[in-house]
Amino acid sequence: MVTVKQHIGSADAALRQRAQRVIPGGMYGHLNTSRIAAGMPQFFSRAQGCYIWDVDGNEYIDFMCSWGPIVLGHGDAEIEQAAEAQRQLGDCLNGPGPVMVELAELLTATVRHADWAMFAKNGTDATSYCVALARMATGKRKILMASGAYHGTAPWCNPTTAGMLPDDRAHVLKFRYNDLESVRVAVAEAGDDFAGIVVCPFRHDVRFDQEMVDPAFARGLRAICDAAGAALIIDEVRAAFRLHHGGSWEDLGVKPDLSAWSKAMGNGYPIAAMLGTDAFRTAATQIFATGSFWFAAVPMAAAIATIKALKERNAVHVMEATGTRLREGLASQAEHYGLAIRQTGPVQIPFMTFANDPDFVKAEVFARVTAAHGAYVHPTHNWFLSTAHTSTDIDRALQATEQGFLAVRRQYGEG
Amino acid sequence: MVTVKQHIGSADAALRQRAQRVIPGGMYGHLNTSRIAAGMPQFFSRAQGCYIWDVDGNEYIDFMCSWGPIVLGHGDAEIEQAAEAQRQLGDCLNGPGPVMVELAELLTATVRHADWAMFAKNGTDATSYCVALARMATGKRKILMASGAYHGTAPWCNPTTAGMLPDDRAHVLKFRYNDLESVRVAVAEAGDDFAGIVVCPFRHDVRFDQEMVDPAFARGLRAICDAAGAALIIDEVRAAFRLHHGGSWEDLGVKPDLSAWSKAMGNGYPIAAMLGTDAFRTAATQIFATGSFWFAAVPMAAAIATIKALKERNAVHVMEATGTRLREGLASQAEHYGLAIRQTGPVQIPFMTFANDPDFVKAEVFARVTAAHGAYVHPTHNWFLSTAHTSTDIDRALQATEQGFLAVRRQYGEG
Repeated sequence: MVTVKQHIGSADAALRQRAQRVIPGGMYGHLNTSRIAAGMPQFFSRAQGCYIWDVDGNEYIDFMCSWGPIVLGHGDAEIEQAAEAQRQLGDCLNGPGPVMVELAELLTATVRHADWAMFAKNGTDATSYCVALARMATGKRKILMASGAYHGTAPWCNPTTAGMLPDDRAHVLKFRYNDLESVRVAVAEAGDDFAGIVVCPFRHDVRFDQEMVDPAFARGLRAICDAAGAALIIDEVRAAFRLHHGGSWEDLGVKPDLSAWSKAMGNGYPIAAMLGTDAFRTAATQIFATGSFWFAAVPMAAAIATIKALKERNAVHVMEATGTRLREGLASQAEHYGLAIRQTGPVQIPFMTFANDPDFVKAEVFARVTAAHGAYVHPTHNWFLSTAHTSTDIDRALQATEQGFLAVRRQYGEG
Repeated sequence: MVTVKQHIGSADAALRQRAQRVIPGGMYGHLNTSRIAAGMPQFFSRAQGCYIWDVDGNEYIDFMCSWGPIVLGHGDAEIEQAAEAQRQLGDCLNGPGPVMVELAELLTATVRHADWAMFAKNGTDATSYCVALARMATGKRKILMASGAYHGTAPWCNPTTAGMLPDDRAHVLKFRYNDLESVRVAVAEAGDDFAGIVVCPFRHDVRFDQEMVDPAFARGLRAICDAAGAALIIDEVRAAFRLHHGGSWEDLGVKPDLSAWSKAMGNGYPIAAMLGTDAFRTAATQIFATGSFWFAAVPMAAAIATIKALKERNAVHVMEATGTRLREGLASQAEHYGLAIRQTGPVQIPFMTFANDPDFVKAEVFARVTAAHGAYVHPTHNWFLSTAHTSTDIDRALQATEQGFLAVRRQYGEG
């Protein structure tokens, strides 16, 4: 079987061996290749547009976009220019630059529910601040979140319990995504201690088919929060700016009280944001939240340029078109090889799973062989498109995925 | 009285007015000028070396260094070159670059107790991970920290309780810095649930005179942790690379089990690190910690260049020399004006307070007038030097501080 060159003696293997000595387990977190699939590269050397290269020089059309941040393609000239212009002046200073005000103005003008903005570094910073703010503003403690949803690695929401305490999540209750009745049960359990609900714009849990939000569910959450005086928090970290140039639920007419943003907003530059309504403004002044690099000007300049470019380039429409081309191409190939697949979620944040593949072994073969032929996809986590992907890139990627399907068919047969 | 130009119509005032509309309270966090002193600028436009300029074009010799990160001066050519070379290849990719392994190797070679390294974005990320790791490795819950110490804004250590729950710090016990007996009391209270101690290399609490660590205290903490099988965690976030090119307690012969790093390690580029010993390596593989930008290559390239440059330029010695010149100059001026001051902490992370100034009103006048004459210092928080400060810069800054002392003397008289 074709695999990416990572045999003994490869640059990737050499780096892994060195990493084993100085990084626990050789790697950690969501980029840890041991969590992805055997035969996928761990270390990357460079990127441009929708192309990435691993340390052995293998080239891939990139369908992870650094797990979301790269929404306009790697090294986009316009964004890099804006960042460089600010960098020539200064980045991390004794106070913010004018770009902080400009970015807050741009976000409040862009996102319908946002009356104000604050900035941080991690998505986890943003979701955790929104939770603290819901508690501060309501004087209540219980936060409701969907089972299996990922809101970061803070103790209240870390997907594992290792190193965390039961006390850290003593006031977190779970519901099932798109199941209002399960929300009502959790609200009843919260009783008069119900501070808020944190929810993603669509269901994008790792190792599960994605699920678009039921508009009635979104509206129901809004009504439940309104009735209880609780905060509705949307975790936009993963979805933002790929579904809508403003908030992801704006077309549903559902306005959250608070929202958490990061990833795509700076096209790879490190930034996160908390947005909120006037009702939460005073409480927002009362919580002490800060970080050494939270006010750095370069990522803010990059974010301003990114948000403007997304609108000017009609980014959502562009990604919908290329995403549809990819989805239709994959569907046609799977059918040709007699393989049952499910493609779920928005076409611009696609995910594909195989039927009868509970342990994702087919998905891993598919990802590995597709990578070996020049397209990088993930077996168990949703993928991401950028505006840098052209129809030609999609068609080229489909040549790689065809080899992936062929390998699955050969190894596991039809079905 | 001379004040920095921020009258109505100034660029700073205009930005503050705009910020009031789109940022809760107009600003937040440690850079919020309303927490610093009236008359100090909120917004900065650019920086170079040890000089910063506010948005009205006022120039300052910078004694905050962005609150620590800028250790080699703003825009240091060598660091910017290293960052730019990596940026041309790529920053935020689908996996880390080779620089991650190089940086981990460099840190483990540089910091005596470190057998391994992990990276994050915020100092808070690093301290919180070390706490989680102490709990994971020991199976215990209680963490001891010094009263008034700042370890970040996570719920377990946030300096205020706004938005935080008692449960978040149910297993955090306090001791007094440099008071071993108070540590023993806390350890007794922790009983058989004692996971670890987190402590700064010296006492640098805001609004308090700084205090160097008593070597017997440092050794006592090590002995207490050894006896209990608990983790000794050093929070190096603020002090690192200004006291020592490795760990801040290395000259005391006290090795922590874990340490948290950020601020100065990338000369302004956003990065944090967790370092630890082999005994904690397995537990470190078990905690899920990650972030969208934690593996970005540019800050790692900047950190490699920074750590190498610090050694090559003999940075600690350079900052000790200029810090001593500043301290002696301030002492001489204060004496000349008949003002009693205290200068505490390391000369390269200086802090100055006035006698009989419990509310820091003299300190605020001093900071404001010194700023108006071209040197930026903080009234209630320690200051920072960089290697970019020359003797000439110190002497120039002392002309500004002389005006600050003069103003305090005129307003409050001798004493």
